Amino acid sequence: MVRVAVIGGTGYTALEVMRLLQRHPQAEVTVVTSRSETGPVASVHPSLTSLVDVSFTSPTTDEIAENADVAFCCLPHKASMDSIPSLLSAGLKVVDLSADYRLNDPAVYEKWYGHVHTDPTRLGNTVYGLPELNGDRIKGRDLIANPGCYTSTSILALAPFVSRGIVNCESIIIDAKSGVSGAGRTPKVATLYAECNESMSAYAIGSHRHTPEIEQVLSDVSGRKVEVIFTPHLAPMDRGIFATIYADLTKKVTEAAAMEILRKFYAGKPFVRVVSHLPKTKDVAYTNFCDITVRIVRGRLIVLAVLDNMIKGAAGVAIQNFNLMCGFNETTALL
Amino acid sequence: MVRVAVIGGTGYTALEVMRLLQRHPQAEVTVVTSRSETGPVASVHPSLTSLVDVSFTSPTTDEIAENADVAFCCLPHKASMDSIPSLLSAGLKVVDLSADYRLNDPAVYEKWYGHVHTDPTRLGNTVYGLPELNGDRIKGRDLIANPGCYTSTSILALAPFVSRGIVNCESIIIDAKSGVSGAGRTPKVATLYAECNESMSAYAIGSHRHTPEIEQVLSDVSGRKVEVIFTPHLAPMDRGIFATIYADLTKKVTEAAAMEILRKFYAGKPFVRVVSHLPKTKDVAYTNFCDITVRIVRGRLIVLAVLDNMIKGAAGVAIQNFNLMCGFNETTALL
Amino acid sequence: MVRVAVIGGTGYTALEVMRLLQRHPQAEVTVVTSRSETGPVASVHPSLTSLVDVSFTSPTTDEIAENADVAFCCLPHKASMDSIPSLLSAGLKVVDLSADYRLNDPAVYEKWYGHVHTDPTRLGNTVYGLPELNGDRIKGRDLIANPGCYTSTSILALAPFVSRGIVNCESIIIDAKSGVSGAGRTPKVATLYAECNESMSAYAIGSHRHTPEIEQVLSDVSGRKVEVIFTPHLAPMDRGIFATIYADLTKKVTEAAAMEILRKFYAGKPFVRVVSHLPKTKDVAYTNFCDITVRIVRGRLIVLAVLDNMIKGAAGVAIQNFNLMCGFNETTALL
Amino acid sequence: MVRVAVIGGTGYTALEVMRLLQRHPQAEVTVVTSRSETGPVASVHPSLTSLVDVSFTSPTTDEIAENADVAFCCLPHKASMDSIPSLLSAGLKVVDLSADYRLNDPAVYEKWYGHVHTDPTRLGNTVYGLPELNGDRIKGRDLIANPGCYTSTSILALAPFVSRGIVNCESIIIDAKSGVSGAGRTPKVATLYAECNESMSAYAIGSHRHTPEIEQVLSDVSGRKVEVIFTPHLAPMDRGIFATIYADLTKKVTEAAAMEILRKFYAGKPFVRVVSHLPKTKDVAYTNFCDITVRIVRGRLIVLAVLDNMIKGAAGVAIQNFNLMCGFNETTALL
Repeated sequence: MVRVAVIGGTGYTALEVMRLLQRHPQAEVTVVTSRSETGPVASVHPSLTSLVDVSFTSPTTDEIAENADVAFCCLPHKASMDSIPSLLSAGLKVVDLSADYRLNDPAVYEKWYGHVHTDPTRLGNTVYGLPELNGDRIKGRDLIANPGCYTSTSILALAPFVSRGIVNCESIIIDAKSGVSGAGRTPKVATLYAECNESMSAYAIGSHRHTPEIEQVLSDVSGRKVEVIFTPHLAPMDRGIFATIYADLTKKVTEAAAMEILRKFYAGKPFVRVVSHLPKTKDVAYTNFCDITVRIVRGRLIVLAVLDNMIKGAAGVAIQNFNLMCGFNETTALL
Repeated sequence: MVRVAVIGGTGYTALEVMRLLQRHPQAEVTVVTSRSETGPVASVHPSLTSLVDVSFTSPTTDEIAENADVAFCCLPHKASMDSIPSLLSAGLKVVDLSADYRLNDPAVYEKWYGHVHTDPTRLGNTVYGLPELNGDRIKGRDLIANPGCYTSTSILALAPFVSRGIVNCESIIIDAKSGVSGAGRTPKVATLYAECNESMSAYAIGSHRHTPEIEQVLSDVSGRKVEVIFTPHLAPMDRGIFATIYADLTKKVTEAAAMEILRKFYAGKPFVRVVSHLPKTKDVAYTNFCDITVRIVRGRLIVLAVLDNMIKGAAGVAIQNFNLMCGFNETTALL
Repeated sequence: MVRVAVIGGTGYTALEVMRLLQRHPQAEVTVVTSRSETGPVASVHPSLTSLVDVSFTSPTTDEIAENADVAFCCLPHKASMDSIPSLLSAGLKVVDLSADYRLNDPAVYEKWYGHVHTDPTRLGNTVYGLPELNGDRIKGRDLIANPGCYTSTSILALAPFVSRGIVNCESIIIDAKSGVSGAGRTPKVATLYAECNESMSAYAIGSHRHTPEIEQVLSDVSGRKVEVIFTPHLAPMDRGIFATIYADLTKKVTEAAAMEILRKFYAGKPFVRVVSHLPKTKDVAYTNFCDITVRIVRGRLIVLAVLDNMIKGAAGVAIQNFNLMCGFNETTALL
Repeated sequence: MVRVAVIGGTGYTALEVMRLLQRHPQAEVTVVTSRSETGPVASVHPSLTSLVDVSFTSPTTDEIAENADVAFCCLPHKASMDSIPSLLSAGLKVVDLSADYRLNDPAVYEKWYGHVHTDPTRLGNTVYGLPELNGDRIKGRDLIANPGCYTSTSILALAPFVSRGIVNCESIIIDAKSGVSGAGRTPKVATLYAECNESMSAYAIGSHRHTPEIEQVLSDVSGRKVEVIFTPHLAPMDRGIFATIYADLTKKVTEAAAMEILRKFYAGKPFVRVVSHLPKTKDVAYTNFCDITVRIVRGRLIVLAVLDNMIKGAAGVAIQNFNLMCGFNETTALL
């Protein structure tokens, strides 16, 4: 039984990690940390009543290492890189759900996050935790950078095509619609029910921090510099990301051929479902699936992808990475 | 043209007061106060762009009195009674949307609100602003206590029956369901979209502050002490209150007779619609209507009433009171 | 491996049964019937893509019996009792998710459903499938009447108290709020998104068919005739039932004592969580839990209970019954 | 007082036309037709109780002409062109809310709607009722083709830029998100609450019938052939369209210059608000406003526009057209 510590246990991703892990036959949550809370985990997350019998604590790294083998780090960026080096030194394996170890270049990190990276030597050496691309490299690793929710959706939709060199790498437009849970559990006017309900809005146009992440991975996959226009929207729903992606083709491709490219790319990948119908976020709600399809309209490629931002976009893929790191079946606790 | 000051202009009720007033041919918003904001009102309330061309200011009472004739006080309770005496002294008429002047007895106020009332002589002399009950007394007054949203729904549903003496005054159960906008614009975890969506919950069971207000008015109407069980619920919707009210009858009444009691009581009242079908909150969304019907089940009375908590439950009835205070047609700006 | 037939596979409860069963290590869906559909199950239920690889068929009873050991009957009432006798004769065990075998008395059935019961001898001999009350009697049975969603919520909330004889059996009021999925997948104006969104409504006041079911089981539990006022509401959410239940006490009971009654009654029951906080439907979304708490207000009992109408209210409890019928662990596939 | 007939009064656009008209001091609804309903209008549309006191009838054209001066035709396409010629012959002015008179070319109509146009001589002579473009031509006309909801949003966003010749007319991508009310009141599985809630989806990619309408008007405005990629999405909300529009620029334009182009184009237009912030559909809910802003990202133009699909996208603009046709103030009943 692998003992798991959840670092920063009050937010929504931590909740989902714990909810999924209680189904895992080879894992057990033993430590849940918080700087603000001290009672039972279920006092903050009532849905975990009778499922997670741990209380929030504020332990030292050594105390964590005594009681856990693997840490899911659910801290905000910056706080995450302040904690992770010592967790690794103490012998823990770490899945980092923050953005701190996703980018390879400290200068890019500083530009988009507004502060210096304090653990730069690990950048570039940390595996980006998208198992459909990097599965083999994740096995046995000590630190995995769990991808962003918009990022996973965008990359899973585009990788099959950019890796083939059939899309113009400067033409990509990602119009993404997310549920509100992605904005987290910290109270803000903008995420109040009365603000979001019956409202669709766009935000962070041209400036969302998932942009360099998408570009880095797609550039790696394609071998060319990829620049995207990424427009995130807030949709009046709890969960789900819907990405509608437009790209110019470098050569004529039929819809059937485009579908075949998707099918081949994801053959044997249990959590990507290439579908011929138009997917809906509800089809993947509360699952670790990403459903993808493709259309050709007036000679241009339109890829449509959906996932649950809390599961395949955060906690689910974290468990998938955990399974690979620990040598478990990739799908354990996720079907 | 009556010049209107909105005191405390950043919240949802203030927004609705301004939205409705811009349709009013005899009123003009000239002052909107805020302690936290300084820019144009539309910078906080973008829906008012091009409709309200005033900026937030933090004026003295004298400055308000120079520029306005009537004040809609949208402050929280306590802050309201700190401001209203001087507004009245400066010659303004005031519609108070807080709870500070609704209760007649300072001791009851202190018990439910947890602090001493600092303007106790006005309690008992202030007219409770429910025009369907107190219309004649509202005309020409200087200070009106605008009722609570749950209160209006409950009283409008019950007054016809308790005034007739046909319900057991100790048997009343009010099971009320409210949209989330009633909880206001201050960010809290409990009113985040991701918490409220797909969730029904109850709160403040046996302790909600609208309880003494309902009991006071119904006791006045019936001439007997009325005690209610009031259970508020939060429903996953923006606007609307649905009250399902149960009471024992003191004598046998048919459904037809009960309907007739409602119809007679509200004859000539433009904003209460007695309907034979079961009403829905959506039927009254964005209107100043309260729709009511009644059923008899196994000898007991079930009254169902709906209104828009932001309009008939707050800003709309405030305009209705304003119309009566100023001698305008009761329905101006409200149909 | 138990082979399962889903009879009537196009609706929402069938979808949930199949979704849950694919997690069951000892069960396999082999037959899914439909009179209207013929393609893959996933063509109607895209969320089951890659999870359920069966196509809709329209087999004879014998063909079903050749390919399956247990049938989950997801037909509407009437259609259900037309099919079940032959399924039983052919040797299948049956969990009936319709209302056809829930009531003991054919006359009561005829009164509430408007047609004669065509298999009356089984009424009264069929076990009502509420495992928390009837767990021992469910084991090994061939036919289980799976309870209604409102019914389960109401009975689980009230059984601990009526069985103790501490509530007045004629005073019970059940004010229940349900998500819209409970209304099924047949298109009707009343359940369109544009009708239900931002709308709370009541329906079937005094005439909902779950009323006699609640009364029958509570009368059995209490040994006295129980009559309830049951008011169902439609809430703008997909899933969840919230029941707020009011009853007069026959003797003075403290809140602590009432909580203790709940805790004792449900000790060792894995799917009822007695909680001290006020529960929300979201706490139990996508789970087989029913969360219950109790309050005493002005001497009266208020019990609050929530469950997911699709899981603990339908498909989840059906699996729980299936587990008991087949001798599996009660919680298999449900945690 | 202008007497108004609503032809086809059971749907949502008819409801909104009637709701808005009851605020109009110079108009009165005298006839509401239906082939299926016969009772009071409020029996189908309970929100109109006490506001619209007319019953559904099924009159001849002559009977309509005796009792009304102007007809709002809310029939589906095809049914609309079957009725309108005789309404015009009988001397009525007509605002047609269907698609039947929007396209200029009968061949294009036949291609997209799948049947021959039976009144082709009026195509090309009917004014397209977008008052911000065609206001002067609408005045005094007898027949106006009221635009589609997606169409208005898209054209209002793009016209200022294509008319200047600064966008590449083959590069335009319109990613539009609509509330579900746009799908109408006819029951379908796809628009059930339980299907749409918590779900974002795309539909009719490359084949939506508003495509030729957008292209026709933008081609007229620009003097060049415009071809767009138009991707409609269904968002889990009742009302509102959010259009995110991408286009390549033919020359370098700053964001400030792009904003200035918008401001100049809509100077003096009361229902288009050019805003500097990112608009939300909620900002325009229940109003006749279209809020628009623009961004330049990586050299490309992104225009964002929102409106209420039921008001500015259908019934509101119909009243705006009616006002212009009849010589009333353009904003009457709409602010």
